[in-house]
Amino acid sequence: MLLPTLREQVLHANKEIARRGLAPHTFGNASGIDRLGADGSGREPLVVIKPSGVDYAALTAADLVVTDLDGKIVEGSLRPSSDLDTHTLLYRAFPQIGGVVHTHSEFATSWAQAGRPIPCLGTTHADYFHGPVPVTKPLTAQQVAEAYVRNTGEVIVQRFRDGNLDPIAVPGVLVAGHAPFAWGISVAEAVEHADVLEYIARLAFRTVLLRLQYDPSGPSDSAIPVYVSEHHYQRKHGPKATYGQL
Amino acid sequence: MLLPTLREQVLHANKEIARRGLAPHTFGNASGIDRLGADGSGREPLVVIKPSGVDYAALTAADLVVTDLDGKIVEGSLRPSSDLDTHTLLYRAFPQIGGVVHTHSEFATSWAQAGRPIPCLGTTHADYFHGPVPVTKPLTAQQVAEAYVRNTGEVIVQRFRDGNLDPIAVPGVLVAGHAPFAWGISVAEAVEHADVLEYIARLAFRTVLLRLQYDPSGPSDSAIPVYVSEHHYQRKHGPKATYGQL
Amino acid sequence: MLLPTLREQVLHANKEIARRGLAPHTFGNASGIDRLGADGSGREPLVVIKPSGVDYAALTAADLVVTDLDGKIVEGSLRPSSDLDTHTLLYRAFPQIGGVVHTHSEFATSWAQAGRPIPCLGTTHADYFHGPVPVTKPLTAQQVAEAYVRNTGEVIVQRFRDGNLDPIAVPGVLVAGHAPFAWGISVAEAVEHADVLEYIARLAFRTVLLRLQYDPSGPSDSAIPVYVSEHHYQRKHGPKATYGQL
Amino acid sequence: MLLPTLREQVLHANKEIARRGLAPHTFGNASGIDRLGADGSGREPLVVIKPSGVDYAALTAADLVVTDLDGKIVEGSLRPSSDLDTHTLLYRAFPQIGGVVHTHSEFATSWAQAGRPIPCLGTTHADYFHGPVPVTKPLTAQQVAEAYVRNTGEVIVQRFRDGNLDPIAVPGVLVAGHAPFAWGISVAEAVEHADVLEYIARLAFRTVLLRLQYDPSGPSDSAIPVYVSEHHYQRKHGPKATYGQL
Repeated sequence: MLLPTLREQVLHANKEIARRGLAPHTFGNASGIDRLGADGSGREPLVVIKPSGVDYAALTAADLVVTDLDGKIVEGSLRPSSDLDTHTLLYRAFPQIGGVVHTHSEFATSWAQAGRPIPCLGTTHADYFHGPVPVTKPLTAQQVAEAYVRNTGEVIVQRFRDGNLDPIAVPGVLVAGHAPFAWGISVAEAVEHADVLEYIARLAFRTVLLRLQYDPSGPSDSAIPVYVSEHHYQRKHGPKATYGQL
Repeated sequence: MLLPTLREQVLHANKEIARRGLAPHTFGNASGIDRLGADGSGREPLVVIKPSGVDYAALTAADLVVTDLDGKIVEGSLRPSSDLDTHTLLYRAFPQIGGVVHTHSEFATSWAQAGRPIPCLGTTHADYFHGPVPVTKPLTAQQVAEAYVRNTGEVIVQRFRDGNLDPIAVPGVLVAGHAPFAWGISVAEAVEHADVLEYIARLAFRTVLLRLQYDPSGPSDSAIPVYVSEHHYQRKHGPKATYGQL
Repeated sequence: MLLPTLREQVLHANKEIARRGLAPHTFGNASGIDRLGADGSGREPLVVIKPSGVDYAALTAADLVVTDLDGKIVEGSLRPSSDLDTHTLLYRAFPQIGGVVHTHSEFATSWAQAGRPIPCLGTTHADYFHGPVPVTKPLTAQQVAEAYVRNTGEVIVQRFRDGNLDPIAVPGVLVAGHAPFAWGISVAEAVEHADVLEYIARLAFRTVLLRLQYDPSGPSDSAIPVYVSEHHYQRKHGPKATYGQL
Repeated sequence: MLLPTLREQVLHANKEIARRGLAPHTFGNASGIDRLGADGSGREPLVVIKPSGVDYAALTAADLVVTDLDGKIVEGSLRPSSDLDTHTLLYRAFPQIGGVVHTHSEFATSWAQAGRPIPCLGTTHADYFHGPVPVTKPLTAQQVAEAYVRNTGEVIVQRFRDGNLDPIAVPGVLVAGHAPFAWGISVAEAVEHADVLEYIARLAFRTVLLRLQYDPSGPSDSAIPVYVSEHHYQRKHGPKATYGQL
C-alpha cells in the first residue's frame, strides 16, 4: 500500500474534523500530499484523500484514495471525495502547502453564506491569519457548468492572486455561498487552521452584533490597528518569533 | 410481534433524535411504514410509531405501537404518539416516503415560530433541499377545533400542493408557530433529514443576522444563484449524481 | 433523619439542575415540601433545601437542611440556601406546589435581565405555560433594604395576584434583573419546568431576532393565536388531555 | 523541585481552563505566586507559570516554569508563556492577588473585541463583579513597539488606577481588541472568576440583543439599580456576608 504514513495522517485529520464538530454528517474532507511521490524517487507528487460520502467513524487508512495531481486514481477502490478537483488545484497553485481541509463548520460557513470576509477584530485572529479571512467571488454560471469543483479552486486561487495574498500567511478562505477551505504545511496544521478559522468566525460574529447594538451607524468591521495585528502575527510566525518552544 | 425489523429501525430513529439533541424531553417522535403490511401479502400498509410521552431512554421495540393508515391500533398496549394523525396523513398523501420524524429542534423551531421559510443560502442547504424549506399557513380556528393533529398534516400537504413541491426533493417542512416535520424513503433517512434541517436552520439564522449588520436595508434572504443550488442538488440526487459510492 | 424520601428527591433535583447545565457554579437551588410534616401526624409542613454555596457534585442527602415554613431550621448543621426565604414564601402563597427550583440558566436569565416576559411564540411554550412567562416588577430600594430574599418572593406573588395567574398553569416566573424561578407539584416536576423554561427562552430569543430581520417595524412578540395555544395546553393539561399514557 | 504545592495548583488551573472550554488550542495560561518565596525565608516572591505553546493535555507539574517578579527564570527548562510579563506586572501592581488567568473565552473575548465594558445587567454579575467589567484603552503604537506584553499589563493597571477600582472587588478585565484577564486571591479563584466572567459575558450579550429588539432607540446597557447590585455584592463579599458556609 502506497504512503502508509501519510495515509495515517490523513485518516487522523478526517476523524479530527468530525470529532471537533467541524463537519457534521459527511460535510467535509481532508487530504495530504507527498510532493516527492511515494518512494522519493522523483515520481509525480501523490495526493491522499477521503473517499466520497463515507462516514468518518467507519473510515480506515485503506479506504483512502491516492491520486496524482491531475486527480487520476493511482491506488484505491473507492471513489474519491467529490471535492477532489478543488484539492488538487490548490496543491498545484500553492506549492508550499502539504494538506487541505474542507469543512462546513457552522460559523465560518455562515460568513461564507453572507459573502463577507472576516475582518481582523482581535489578536486571536491576528495570531493565525495575516489580514482578513478572504471571501471568493461567486462562481459564474459558466464556471459552474464547465467544471464546478475545479473552478471552486480557481476562484480561490484568483482571490489570492488578485489580493496578492500569501497562502502560508493566510491559511484559509471562504468560498462565497458555500463554506471554508483551510490548509497548512501539513494536513495536521490544516486541521488546526480549520478549527481556528471556525473559532475566529464565532468571535467575529458576536463582535459585529455587539458593535451594532452600540453604534448602529458606524462601520462594524473596523479592524484592530495594524501595529497590533502585525505584532501578534510576527511574534508567532516572524523570524524573531517568541511563541512556543524553540 | 408484527414487523420486528421495522420496529428496530423506528426504535433506533427515536433514540437517535434524542441522542442528537433534536428532541429534548419528549418533544418529538419518529415512525416508519411498511406499505405492504406485515407479511407482504397485500394487506393494508402498517405504521410503527412511538407511544406518547414515553422517555426515549426507556423505550423498547415492544413499546412501539402498530396502526393502520387510518390510525387504528393493530398491535400495542400503549397509546400512540399524540401526533399520529399527522404521520398517517403524510403517509397517505406522500406515497413515496417510508419514514416521518417530528422534532422541536432549536433553530428549525425558531424559524417555524418566526413563520418564515428558510431560504437557500448556501450549498449545504442545496445538497439536501431543492429550494427553500417551506413553511405552512397557520391553522384556522376551525381547523384546530375540528381535528388539530390531522389538520396539521393537511396544512403541510396543502403547502406542497399549492407550491407544486415534490416531497422527495423537499424532504421537510416548518409548521408555522409549531415545529418541523421531516421525512425520507426510510425512517433512517428521515432522521438524517431532520438533523440536516436543524443544521441549515442554524447556518441560515447566523447568515441573515450577519447580512443585516452589513446591509440593513437590503433583502436578507436572497438565495444563492439557482445555477449553483441546482448543480449541487443534482450532483447528489440527479440521474448523473457524482456524490458518494456507486 | 427526617424525611429520607424527600431528601433523596431534593438531592436528585439539585444534581439534575447542575447536570443539565441550568446552574453553573452554585447558581441555583432546589427544595421540596412535605405539607404534612415528617410523620404525617398533622405537624407543621417541612421544607428540605440545599445548603448554601456547596458544590452539587459533593452534595449528599445528609447535607440538606430541613426548615419549617418560616425558615427556622428543624434539622441540619449547614446553613440553608441564601434564597430560602423566597422558597418558603412561595410555599406559603402557592399551596398547590410541592417543589421549587431556582436557576441562573442562560437564556431565561437573559430574558429576566432584559426585563421582558417571554411571549407564547409556539406550541412548545403552549404545552407547558398557559400564557406568557411573566416577569416581576423590580424590587424597590426599600424592599431590598428591608428583606431582599423574602421580597423577591413577594414580587413574584404580587405578579401572580395582579395578573390573576394560576401557579399550576404558569409554573415559573422571571425575576427582573435576576433570574428564573420554577415550581411544580413535586420537586421533580419543578426541575422539568425549569428546563423547559430555559428551552422556550432559547426558542423565543431566536424567534424575536429572526422576526426583526424581516420586519424591523413590526411587533416582535405577537404570540401564536389563542385558539392554538389553548388547544395545546388543554390537550396536555385539561380534563380531556390526550397526551401521554393514562 | 521548588514549590511543589503551588505547581500542582497551577497545573490544575491550566487544565481546568482547557476542560471548561475557556481556552481552545493553547489560547490561555494560568499562573500563581508564592509571595514569600519557595521556603518562606523572606526571599523574593516566585511565580509559577505555564510554558509557552504546550498542549494542556500533555502538561505536567515539572513542565511549569518558575520565575521571579521580573520574569527571570529561576527553575525550568522550557520557555515561559509569552504572556509572562503581563502576569508579573499584575502581581507587582496588585499585591492582594495570588493567581492570574488569561483566556480567549468566546463571549468575553467578543466583548473585548467590541471594545465595550460589560455593564452590570443582573445579579449573577453583581455577585462577582463590583460594577461593570472594565475594558482597557487600546495600546498605542509606541506601547506595542516598546514592550507589548508588559504594556498589556500597564493598560490594565492604568484602567484600574484611572477608575479607582479595587482588583479584589473587580477581579477581571477585558483588554481591548484582545481578550480577558482574571485573577483572585489564589489561582483556583482566578479560574473561577475567568469562568464566571465568560458566563456573565454570555448573559449580557443576549440581554443587550433582546433589549434592542424591544427598544431600538433606548440605551441598551442601563444597569440594574445600584441598591440591588450593592446588596448582592455585599451579601457575598461584605463584612456581613450571608452566602455559603461560615
